[in-house]
Amino acid sequence: MTTINVGLLGLGTVGRGVATILARQTPQLASLHLKITRAAVRTLTPKRQAQFPAIALTTDALAVVNDPDIQIIVEVMGGIDLPFALLKQALKNGKQVITANKDLIATHGQALTALAAKHHVGLNYEAAVMGGIPILRTLNTNFAGDAITGLAGIANGTSNFILTQMAAGCSYAEALAQAQAKGFAESDPTNDVEGLDAAYKLLILTRLAFDLNAKLANIHRQGITTLRRADFAAADFFGFTIKPLVSARRLDNQLDLTVAPTLVPKSHPLSGVVNEFNAIVLASTNTHELMLTGPGAGSLPTANAVIADLQATALALQDGHTPELAGLAPQPSTALDQPTRQLIALSTNGLVTGLDVATQLGIHGQIYASGDQLHLLTQAVDRQTIAQWRDALNHFVGISLQHILPIFSPDLQGTVTKFQTDEKKISFTA
Amino acid sequence: MTTINVGLLGLGTVGRGVATILARQTPQLASLHLKITRAAVRTLTPKRQAQFPAIALTTDALAVVNDPDIQIIVEVMGGIDLPFALLKQALKNGKQVITANKDLIATHGQALTALAAKHHVGLNYEAAVMGGIPILRTLNTNFAGDAITGLAGIANGTSNFILTQMAAGCSYAEALAQAQAKGFAESDPTNDVEGLDAAYKLLILTRLAFDLNAKLANIHRQGITTLRRADFAAADFFGFTIKPLVSARRLDNQLDLTVAPTLVPKSHPLSGVVNEFNAIVLASTNTHELMLTGPGAGSLPTANAVIADLQATALALQDGHTPELAGLAPQPSTALDQPTRQLIALSTNGLVTGLDVATQLGIHGQIYASGDQLHLLTQAVDRQTIAQWRDALNHFVGISLQHILPIFSPDLQGTVTKFQTDEKKISFTA
Repeated sequence: MTTINVGLLGLGTVGRGVATILARQTPQLASLHLKITRAAVRTLTPKRQAQFPAIALTTDALAVVNDPDIQIIVEVMGGIDLPFALLKQALKNGKQVITANKDLIATHGQALTALAAKHHVGLNYEAAVMGGIPILRTLNTNFAGDAITGLAGIANGTSNFILTQMAAGCSYAEALAQAQAKGFAESDPTNDVEGLDAAYKLLILTRLAFDLNAKLANIHRQGITTLRRADFAAADFFGFTIKPLVSARRLDNQLDLTVAPTLVPKSHPLSGVVNEFNAIVLASTNTHELMLTGPGAGSLPTANAVIADLQATALALQDGHTPELAGLAPQPSTALDQPTRQLIALSTNGLVTGLDVATQLGIHGQIYASGDQLHLLTQAVDRQTIAQWRDALNHFVGISLQHILPIFSPDLQGTVTKFQTDEKKISFTA
Repeated sequence: MTTINVGLLGLGTVGRGVATILARQTPQLASLHLKITRAAVRTLTPKRQAQFPAIALTTDALAVVNDPDIQIIVEVMGGIDLPFALLKQALKNGKQVITANKDLIATHGQALTALAAKHHVGLNYEAAVMGGIPILRTLNTNFAGDAITGLAGIANGTSNFILTQMAAGCSYAEALAQAQAKGFAESDPTNDVEGLDAAYKLLILTRLAFDLNAKLANIHRQGITTLRRADFAAADFFGFTIKPLVSARRLDNQLDLTVAPTLVPKSHPLSGVVNEFNAIVLASTNTHELMLTGPGAGSLPTANAVIADLQATALALQDGHTPELAGLAPQPSTALDQPTRQLIALSTNGLVTGLDVATQLGIHGQIYASGDQLHLLTQAVDRQTIAQWRDALNHFVGISLQHILPIFSPDLQGTVTKFQTDEKKISFTA
């Protein structure tokens, strides 16, 4: 059996994990005869080279991509423009490509998929979405005769960790500091806490689950930075946990894509996914509901996903066929608009009563008042109505609008959930 | 593109589901050019044939297996001896084989896998374990460089449905009657409620996760029929839910295999898997913890798993390579013994106090007494000690032993869970 040579672009957290796992040479890995021969690094020192005696390190990434002895390129360097240029070259050179780069695939996945198809090589990126959860392979291998009607998930471990700490009583600032101390959040946490990281993942999931190339602008995105302890108290009172959800839901020929802190009923398994863990629920015609939960990041979980792609690619090379393409053929974008499934939690300050606000807005539901905090739980309305509410509330004397949170409907196929009432709650209906 | 002809053995619940999904011809399925040309049925009537105008029905299953125009045999007839003979013939004829038959694969999977390898054809059986959950493909594609240290799951939907109803207050008989009314349990529910069905699934999971061909006799198996409402009250008081678990845990070079109603901490996601749903948690070195939840049975979920196998097989045939083999090469059995991780809940009747029993057995822990029911929560001991307890309790005047239930340790990698105490509980320690 001939050895399959692998070139690594990047030798950071994930790259080192890949090298570590390959060095273990489990029986299954040994049968694949994979060998990292070269790795591109940003700065090369004798000390660094000494750590990886079997791998020729270089600062010339293009030389790795153009090396005729290398069959598989694994990109774990991050960024967008440079890896895009390098992987285009790799695909043109007829090399199999594996990447863990979420931003790159979300931005240029369509172009790279087309290029891979043109050159009859594989492009796999299991590690790019929810590191330790094999969601892309599941989407590619389990739904040929099925139709996914909706998906919802926790795709950002940093946000989930922060909201878990807030649910336990921390302030946002305290929770963020804890996340930073544990290495779950960067010093500038913007991409995580404003939902950008999760939005990129949702774009990739949407491509595979719904055969649709959506854009960042199609996603209704809301960060977690405005949340306060009172929101968690109100959510808890009404029977919910607040989770950083991504969701995509098919409504006829349209798709609603949302990234937002969302009220999840405590009875739903997503509410029990805590700390840095990720999860995804897929609703479909045949399988009804399939949920996967696991670590979303980290060196070994993410590297393990790269190894799974390496296994698939190596098996395909050994058999002499084109490796499976993770990713569908490019499709035209479809208009996205008109979500309708939101239920609204409204948080306000001030001296006016919930009844004042509800009457003014013409809404029906339940009110939870605690100190100067006021939360209104209302029925589903469309985004246009929400915009009208926002406008009305901005002109309302005596209150200030904090935010409006969507409520997760466990039935991703369309029906609105009924919520339980309780004699302690002030309820009113039309 | 040439059409790939499929022969179906059996046209019951799952077989009809396969035919239904294939008839939908989603774009992905259409690209595979799969066609069911013949199907073997037990009894053939003109009315039955009229329901499937495009499929030639026959009562001669061997004729389907020997049909030179058929490339893939899908076995969904059930039983062991007859399908074993038919599939051996199919593999010898060089046909790709897909089966949803758990009993067959648990019993003869090793022989069939060897035969498939010898004839360079594929043998896939995703539908045989946890119908709607793609667990076998996940085990085969995600762990090449990883080491699974333990697994635990809910593999029998009937038992989970019954225990869910009992947790809500039903008696065992009421819960069973409900399961039968909903079609989740057969008129003779023995295989489900005594854990045989789950044990077969555990054998298959063990083969793929641990590379080990275990036997039914290696599994410590306990049914759910002795459970009473008092057990659920005691479990609830101590912070647990009782779930019908299968578990496999690696301890050095040995493996503990258990099927039993098990106390699961309410904080663990497995405790939230209710009714007929199945779930599995995999603990491993790289991925730490991966959990999959979904429907374990039913026509369309199970048929969807068959379709996933059909997709993999058809793609492999189109590329002209040997389809992936679901299942490892045959391995010698390894001794299984010496489980050590159990914590014990003991249920007794009578007038003696928990302290009497605890003192007599020399155990430390917590006691929950309610009416004439007594439950003792104790630390982990080995099976030999449990046997000694059973023996001692059989000779204890004034009590009768109902059963001993294991307690699930969420850390499948070895550490014993610490349990919370509460001032309402009678606690005592050495």
